[in-house]
Amino acid sequence: MELHTYEKEFFDLLKKISHYEEAVVLMHWDLRTGAPKNGAEDRAESIGQLSADIFNMKTSKRMKELLDALYEKFEELPEDTKKAAEWAKKDYEENSKIPEKEYKEYVVLSSKAETVWEDAKEQSDFSLFAPYLKQLIEYNKRFITYWGYEGHPYNTLLDLFEPGLTVDVLDELFSELKKAIIPLVKKVSASTNKPDTSFIHQSFSKKKQKDLSLYFLKELGYDFNGGRLDETVHPFATTINRGDVRVTTRFDENDFRTAIFGTIHECGHAIYEQNIDEALSGTNLSDGASMGIHESQSLFYENFIGRNENFWKTYYPKMKEASPEQFRHVALEEFVLAVNESKPSLIRVQADELTYPLHIIIRYEIEKAIFSNEVSVEELPALWNQKYEEYLGITPPNDAQGILQDVHWACGDFGYFPSYALGYMYAAQLKNKMLEDLPEFDTLVEKGEFQQIKEWLTEKVHVHGRRKKPLEIIKEATGEELNVRYLIEYLKNKYSNLYLS
Amino acid sequence: MELHTYEKEFFDLLKKISHYEEAVVLMHWDLRTGAPKNGAEDRAESIGQLSADIFNMKTSKRMKELLDALYEKFEELPEDTKKAAEWAKKDYEENSKIPEKEYKEYVVLSSKAETVWEDAKEQSDFSLFAPYLKQLIEYNKRFITYWGYEGHPYNTLLDLFEPGLTVDVLDELFSELKKAIIPLVKKVSASTNKPDTSFIHQSFSKKKQKDLSLYFLKELGYDFNGGRLDETVHPFATTINRGDVRVTTRFDENDFRTAIFGTIHECGHAIYEQNIDEALSGTNLSDGASMGIHESQSLFYENFIGRNENFWKTYYPKMKEASPEQFRHVALEEFVLAVNESKPSLIRVQADELTYPLHIIIRYEIEKAIFSNEVSVEELPALWNQKYEEYLGITPPNDAQGILQDVHWACGDFGYFPSYALGYMYAAQLKNKMLEDLPEFDTLVEKGEFQQIKEWLTEKVHVHGRRKKPLEIIKEATGEELNVRYLIEYLKNKYSNLYLS
Repeated sequence: MELHTYEKEFFDLLKKISHYEEAVVLMHWDLRTGAPKNGAEDRAESIGQLSADIFNMKTSKRMKELLDALYEKFEELPEDTKKAAEWAKKDYEENSKIPEKEYKEYVVLSSKAETVWEDAKEQSDFSLFAPYLKQLIEYNKRFITYWGYEGHPYNTLLDLFEPGLTVDVLDELFSELKKAIIPLVKKVSASTNKPDTSFIHQSFSKKKQKDLSLYFLKELGYDFNGGRLDETVHPFATTINRGDVRVTTRFDENDFRTAIFGTIHECGHAIYEQNIDEALSGTNLSDGASMGIHESQSLFYENFIGRNENFWKTYYPKMKEASPEQFRHVALEEFVLAVNESKPSLIRVQADELTYPLHIIIRYEIEKAIFSNEVSVEELPALWNQKYEEYLGITPPNDAQGILQDVHWACGDFGYFPSYALGYMYAAQLKNKMLEDLPEFDTLVEKGEFQQIKEWLTEKVHVHGRRKKPLEIIKEATGEELNVRYLIEYLKNKYSNLYLS
Repeated sequence: MELHTYEKEFFDLLKKISHYEEAVVLMHWDLRTGAPKNGAEDRAESIGQLSADIFNMKTSKRMKELLDALYEKFEELPEDTKKAAEWAKKDYEENSKIPEKEYKEYVVLSSKAETVWEDAKEQSDFSLFAPYLKQLIEYNKRFITYWGYEGHPYNTLLDLFEPGLTVDVLDELFSELKKAIIPLVKKVSASTNKPDTSFIHQSFSKKKQKDLSLYFLKELGYDFNGGRLDETVHPFATTINRGDVRVTTRFDENDFRTAIFGTIHECGHAIYEQNIDEALSGTNLSDGASMGIHESQSLFYENFIGRNENFWKTYYPKMKEASPEQFRHVALEEFVLAVNESKPSLIRVQADELTYPLHIIIRYEIEKAIFSNEVSVEELPALWNQKYEEYLGITPPNDAQGILQDVHWACGDFGYFPSYALGYMYAAQLKNKMLEDLPEFDTLVEKGEFQQIKEWLTEKVHVHGRRKKPLEIIKEATGEELNVRYLIEYLKNKYSNLYLS
């Protein structure tokens, strides 16, 4: 066969996979936005069936043959085909190197582990979860030997979520970040300039929150012709297909921040996916470049726009209109300070911008220790608590508020957490660069003119999809390697202004 | 292999097909309940892909081998396996007898024809649609020669929707029905006792209509743990899986009947599917017995319960509560008469209970003539108009309100219409029998106690799924063959009471 015949068949196969993925993603979205509970069991089986079919297509003999044929004349291939083949090969190898039997055992184990973790968390008893965690770690260690690694074994896990990232890079970044943040957190904690946040917990009607969520999405440039907003318990954005990128949010009548900032956060994820080059549709390149790059977009919208005082100059009146009693005696400055409150806390998902990276660094250091065989599972709760005391000055009173708080390890997701902190760094570095092209950034935010901001992000990040690796995107967009100083500067400036001036 | 090994593999294959069907049905439901428009094109492709995969599984070599193995020792098989094998064989033969190339051409043609039909309807110009209709008919005539037929060629098409039904049976039923209804329609038309329906078109808030729709569903015994209600343009009920049977409805603020009776109608469909024997889940028997039996359940709920004066004795106050101004001066009797208004009209989907069967009979007679080669496509509009004049006393002023009103033929669905009228007959015959077991039917309806009614229908109809053929269900439930007199009696009684007393 001619090379272009292989190429065509390869893209046809990717397209077929994308159709299956559309079905699976929709079935997940539906489960989380109101599917009736009696259908959940069959649904799980249907998702399982189609996911297995996707796995089989990605690791099929034919996929291998097509990839072999493409790699034989790799240099003759168009750029996009090269990239698509690289990703398909990565998928093929990740999936096919694990013996099928072991992979199935692992799927069963992690599904069971999630249930056990729920119980353990409810009872706040790590010892219930420990035997499962131990096995999950053992499987992952074995997978690393199948996949191989360079440098540190943990690099292989990092690469699953953040292609190209390594322990060496992260150690340096996180060490600088700690050095800067820990003293700043201490100063902020000691500041007498504390926001009054009592008004936050007054009642704000769900209907009005929904209207505002829809309004902010529209204002920020989310395209409703290619998406919709629904309610869920744990909010997310999800791509059903290139023209259908959905946002979900949660309404807490006694804390509007959940919906407002949650929606703006997911809006950032969704705008990313709505602006990937359409030419990539139906290929494996039509996706975010990495977890971290994705998070950089959601955090950009949530923090640099949504928590920006200039944003609220224009939009705070909208909040007042929606819930007049609640905000009657709250001045704009008080509102801005309250929604930017910073204080050391135990739960990652509730942490503020400033302390959040420390929650991630703690998990990173623990995961690294696990995969360097420096710590046993039994020692983990003590290590966890010790690090919280050391970095945040508080000690979890129990496992539920400590080591059991996140589901990730129960799902076998080791190497995932660092992406959250990388997202912060990417976002800050992009923002710094954006200011060169759009020095009037804050004015645009104040005027509610987000078009140019979106276009800049699209040009530098969104449009590429998975054509580029995370660190390439950052380098090409900003002209330099990933640099943590922009995040540090941002946090120093913002929190000094808010708390220490 | 042993027989039970084949049997197991056969049921595994059916289960796999059911998982694919879940995905396809959900993708359809989603398209019709709010999927963003930009995603529609990819969605169509994904549905196409998975539907093709289902087709391939149903007509696979392996399916054939399994069926051959089962049929070799058919008498040794358990009853459900026999039935499942019969349905799978019917599917296999229907699908595999048509050459693949021809089938694909036909799919493309009918997809194109639907678009052309829309244009033609908009322009009210049958001549635009005629060339497509001609081809669709030719394909169906050829399919009939592939499938074979007994008696009349049209029997083969009827059998697709109503297994076992034939022209001989329908000719007799419809002839009796016409003989009874046509004079009754004339009498009702001539009656001076006309309902005042002006209040119907006053504004009734959508929100209140939705609340009432949810309320009626719950009252009637629809299980929300296994379903949900959504809004759509052309309402339907749909089964995603055995524990997930959804209802949709449409809200017209100037005509509450659309939502109220529409919801009750779909409720009947949904209660049917929610009560099929759970043991059949994941097999090809977990479905309605036929289009007509399905329609009998929706019509039972809509007409015998929803349009029953006793129902409104209890529930009319709920309507008044929801829209007090609208009903302030409308007495219960006036309300009941108005929602049972009967008059000859042009559009099938807007027709009342009494005139509806005539709309169906017209289509049946025309389809039969088409497949007996007694009428050309060019002659159809004239034939249509002539029959409307003859049976209903009115002539369509144009094609849009005449022969172009329904989408069915554009989809290639010939033989489908009779099921609507059969549903009426089934429903009336079942109701007549039910009165022997539940003589207090009207009292139960008045009290809002629907449990026993539902249980009766479940025992006689729902639970069987596709284990029994339509005419078997009727015979076993009522002790006699399908008999049109129960529908005739019902219509005579009801409309004499309303209009002629």
